[in-house]
Amino acid sequence: MSQRPGPEQPEDGGTAAGRRQPDPTRRNARSRAAILMASLQLVGEVGYARLTIEAIAARAGVGKQTIYRWWPSKAAVLLDAFTEGGGEGGPEAAVPDTGDLAADLRAVLRATADEFSDPAFEAPYRALAVAGAQDAELAREFDARLTDVGTELYVARLRSARDAGQIRGDVDLRLAADMLTGPFFQRWLARRGPLDHAFTDALVDAVLAGLRPRD
Amino acid sequence: MSQRPGPEQPEDGGTAAGRRQPDPTRRNARSRAAILMASLQLVGEVGYARLTIEAIAARAGVGKQTIYRWWPSKAAVLLDAFTEGGGEGGPEAAVPDTGDLAADLRAVLRATADEFSDPAFEAPYRALAVAGAQDAELAREFDARLTDVGTELYVARLRSARDAGQIRGDVDLRLAADMLTGPFFQRWLARRGPLDHAFTDALVDAVLAGLRPRD
Repeated sequence: MSQRPGPEQPEDGGTAAGRRQPDPTRRNARSRAAILMASLQLVGEVGYARLTIEAIAARAGVGKQTIYRWWPSKAAVLLDAFTEGGGEGGPEAAVPDTGDLAADLRAVLRATADEFSDPAFEAPYRALAVAGAQDAELAREFDARLTDVGTELYVARLRSARDAGQIRGDVDLRLAADMLTGPFFQRWLARRGPLDHAFTDALVDAVLAGLRPRD
Repeated sequence: MSQRPGPEQPEDGGTAAGRRQPDPTRRNARSRAAILMASLQLVGEVGYARLTIEAIAARAGVGKQTIYRWWPSKAAVLLDAFTEGGGEGGPEAAVPDTGDLAADLRAVLRATADEFSDPAFEAPYRALAVAGAQDAELAREFDARLTDVGTELYVARLRSARDAGQIRGDVDLRLAADMLTGPFFQRWLARRGPLDHAFTDALVDAVLAGLRPRD
């Protein structure tokens, strides 16, 4: 998308709509992508409280009615932006299952640490975490659509390891997932230390030490 | 302190200053306590960003010069309020050492959960966590004076257990402390579940399972 035609400029799409007619599907997809990207940029710049649909529309180069046609609220826009653009559904959406639980969890937590070291991701995510900390309703909405999805991916991988006899049968899988994400979240949000691979590797090893079958 | 005399009313102190003279030491202590209490109430009500020295002074019934005489900033007032009034230095300040590590940690985390279930504590602490998440400088200041102190109390208790051979010699004590506080912090700040004793007990047991000497 290095060059972006204006709304009235004909597309070079090659669909049944023909060469001189705009392709509404492609235009919608491009507008949608621009809106989601703008919402992430803006929430990182001004925070959730000062984010407006008007500002998203201006940044994305669309009319605000376009946004209201597709989403009921700024929270809904951001939910889609995070869900589709990465967010907690990003690297975790593909927790690998090579059979080596430690290696798989290390890979996911390293990728997550890398993601949180990218200001383009970090800034909007921090703005949302701050907004959620102040607004229980928003927190619930984001948990249901975003955080719980990420947690469930860890739980699923841990369950597979439990079924393979690699961790004990009595392990609380949700608590084990929280032990992976909680110290990470605290270190990140409260800036208690660097989010480097040394930290995430040590965390994975420490959590797994408590899950393994007793000899 | 059920009855609070006005500033010009003589004290019934019985010090060398005599009965009809105000006792400046007692008046200072009372003003100081009122200022700290007012700062905690207000930060919970309006958040850190909108907290002002003027509002603290008005709520505490003192002149704002009184506050500026003792503290350089609102952050400094809040640091003292949390340090002296409980905060993370509260229950953790007395991590018991009965020799039973699990019982001691359970007691501390239960007490902490109770504290975070008290709106009078929870609201100002949430406001500060939110402010710290948005302001790296403030986060560093609070970490150094407050959070790191709390962590060090866990580390000290874990070290004592390690010296007693109850946990392995190769355990990273700081990481172990983070595994106790991180899932608690995440559950609380992101409202991911109830902060009840069932959760804190299970967390303590899960963390300790990874620290014990291997048979």
